[in-house]
Amino acid sequence: MSTETIALEQAGAALAAESARFARLGWMLGTSGNLSMTLRRDPLRLAVTASGLDKGELTAADVVVVDAAGTAVPDQPNPAQRPSAEAGLHARIAATAGAGAVVHVHMLSAVLAAQRWPGGVVLRDLEMLKGLGRRDDDVVTVPVVPNSQDMVVLGDAFEQVFDPATPAVIVARHGLYVWGRDLVQARHRTECLQWLFQFALSAGGTEEDMA
Amino acid sequence: MSTETIALEQAGAALAAESARFARLGWMLGTSGNLSMTLRRDPLRLAVTASGLDKGELTAADVVVVDAAGTAVPDQPNPAQRPSAEAGLHARIAATAGAGAVVHVHMLSAVLAAQRWPGGVVLRDLEMLKGLGRRDDDVVTVPVVPNSQDMVVLGDAFEQVFDPATPAVIVARHGLYVWGRDLVQARHRTECLQWLFQFALSAGGTEEDMA
Amino acid sequence: MSTETIALEQAGAALAAESARFARLGWMLGTSGNLSMTLRRDPLRLAVTASGLDKGELTAADVVVVDAAGTAVPDQPNPAQRPSAEAGLHARIAATAGAGAVVHVHMLSAVLAAQRWPGGVVLRDLEMLKGLGRRDDDVVTVPVVPNSQDMVVLGDAFEQVFDPATPAVIVARHGLYVWGRDLVQARHRTECLQWLFQFALSAGGTEEDMA
Amino acid sequence: MSTETIALEQAGAALAAESARFARLGWMLGTSGNLSMTLRRDPLRLAVTASGLDKGELTAADVVVVDAAGTAVPDQPNPAQRPSAEAGLHARIAATAGAGAVVHVHMLSAVLAAQRWPGGVVLRDLEMLKGLGRRDDDVVTVPVVPNSQDMVVLGDAFEQVFDPATPAVIVARHGLYVWGRDLVQARHRTECLQWLFQFALSAGGTEEDMA
Repeated sequence: MSTETIALEQAGAALAAESARFARLGWMLGTSGNLSMTLRRDPLRLAVTASGLDKGELTAADVVVVDAAGTAVPDQPNPAQRPSAEAGLHARIAATAGAGAVVHVHMLSAVLAAQRWPGGVVLRDLEMLKGLGRRDDDVVTVPVVPNSQDMVVLGDAFEQVFDPATPAVIVARHGLYVWGRDLVQARHRTECLQWLFQFALSAGGTEEDMA
Repeated sequence: MSTETIALEQAGAALAAESARFARLGWMLGTSGNLSMTLRRDPLRLAVTASGLDKGELTAADVVVVDAAGTAVPDQPNPAQRPSAEAGLHARIAATAGAGAVVHVHMLSAVLAAQRWPGGVVLRDLEMLKGLGRRDDDVVTVPVVPNSQDMVVLGDAFEQVFDPATPAVIVARHGLYVWGRDLVQARHRTECLQWLFQFALSAGGTEEDMA
Repeated sequence: MSTETIALEQAGAALAAESARFARLGWMLGTSGNLSMTLRRDPLRLAVTASGLDKGELTAADVVVVDAAGTAVPDQPNPAQRPSAEAGLHARIAATAGAGAVVHVHMLSAVLAAQRWPGGVVLRDLEMLKGLGRRDDDVVTVPVVPNSQDMVVLGDAFEQVFDPATPAVIVARHGLYVWGRDLVQARHRTECLQWLFQFALSAGGTEEDMA
Repeated sequence: MSTETIALEQAGAALAAESARFARLGWMLGTSGNLSMTLRRDPLRLAVTASGLDKGELTAADVVVVDAAGTAVPDQPNPAQRPSAEAGLHARIAATAGAGAVVHVHMLSAVLAAQRWPGGVVLRDLEMLKGLGRRDDDVVTVPVVPNSQDMVVLGDAFEQVFDPATPAVIVARHGLYVWGRDLVQARHRTECLQWLFQFALSAGGTEEDMA
């Protein structure tokens, strides 16, 4: 068993455990959402959760290896699994942001915030911003891109709004992408963003600079 | 032990596990709600959860076999159990929609959405619609029918609004029915509908085409 | 060991399990709330949860036997335990309503509903009313009484508003009392009331007859 | 093994268990929040949760001993652990209020209440105030101080608003500090405050004396 295969099994177990956690939080309802980990950089290879399954019940084998285009590579341990259609955007984010893990969840507060502030969700003067690796007095704008079924269109839109200091993007009327150096950091940033979106939705209406 | 009896035990175990999941989510409070699986088509036989029990504590035996009218058949393993009064609507849905499983839950967001949009809850341009087997840019209307204690009246109302492309109907001031080819698909659709109703209730007021 | 002592142990175990369930639901925060079961009718004896303890961590021994005035009887297995100050109201409800179990929880939605409708929370045309033992088209008014630290004053106020058909009363700016023939029925009614109060708070503002 | 070392291990286990509880409640998202227990008074020594870790996954060793300035003392069992930057405020509260335990959580309802009532959150005529050790008819004002990254500034602001009868302070746009004689009392007070803030946010807008 090669080193890479072991890494894939470890990635699969981590992705399954994290998916179950997110499913319990209501972020991966139905079969929605997908998570990925970067297995290697050159050439780019990601382990991404398989499509069409209940995210609360994944096993370590419910994972597919994809390339920089999000296409399943031919020679892999679980050839029968189908990668998520959104694997292409995961790969773009991993390449552009240098992320070690990417989380895509259908977080309701993120979609509602994008609905209210379609030009980007502005967050400032909030201690929780430190959970994104920012200063509490930074002005942080979480960008919003339009939804698309074409992953190249979505990927291009992501690259246009990408700011290396802000590890998240909302896809309007769809969901949230968050990334980090590893899956735990991506989880922590996702949790902090939920708090921030809920705060903005409840309190933001009284702040002049949000429009 | 006949093949049908084994299938009934399997159905009972699956229905009990799913009921416990839905009870934890607050969708089957008190003794409310009921779930069914289609055991055979000709003649139609459904396994439906027994009436009057805590849906978080069902066992595999807390299930009754009913016919196309929702009446308990005379010869069955658990003759002491009483079928839910709503079994008649389950049977109508199973016959009309060809469903393999029907979920009836007292989901608050569904009842609130029907209260706000009594002519039907219109959903469009939302990625989560794919969880119902629709395109994200379809215009999907979840129909609303008036509540009734007469299952024939309810069943007739259901058939009048039934659209094969939309696997759900809301009974006003009562609850939600969702169906699918099996219990897992019905669960996934139910979860996606909760997200969609919550989105519509929070964001829908600003959309012109919802009235 | 007498028959009564065994019944008390069984009651203590049931009350501890139910308290843990309600604590998880956020209905018994801090050390708030208390539950009781009627042990005998003549003279009236109740098993009531002990005061000042975390309701998520009770044991079967954290229970006190009280009389019709809510006072701890002298000769009992756990003489060191202190009964809740509210035991007096439990006893009044058990006597007046003939209840086998009384639940007192600090349910936020009940207190908010009483704040909005201080003359009583009117509920009608809702299927969930059947969970209270009523018809869905009954007009059910959950009465509201002012808060008091004097259990005789509270008990008198309860008796003035008591309607045998409505197994609940809200104490304004305080919490909810619900009762039933046993602890499971009281639980089911409490769960249904939460749904009804949440519905009324979210949808009730548009209904003419609520004021 | 000295007596103090054993106390630290016990404190570490209690702090880890309590952190896991609070993380499940959504009060310690990402790596936010921190808890402390007073180990000795003269000189003041606190056991405080280590910085940068997932608060749902702490072990008994993820704890640091700090002095009255919140600085890690040189000779301790876990010298590799870094104390939270906020340990300085924990120490000020322990010294000023004589607290045996201090809880700091990023409770959304507390931050929203401080946003709405920046001069202090006024609570009155609510039974739940008894959970803070107050009478139900006391007028209790939970003070609000501005956020700062300088723990001396924060500590000075805390001392200016400190009222021995009110065991909590909100740091605006940041989170909540609550204290008590031990960790369980601090937990109970924190739970009661969440109920009180949620009540005030939902019902308070109609009360004249809140502005």
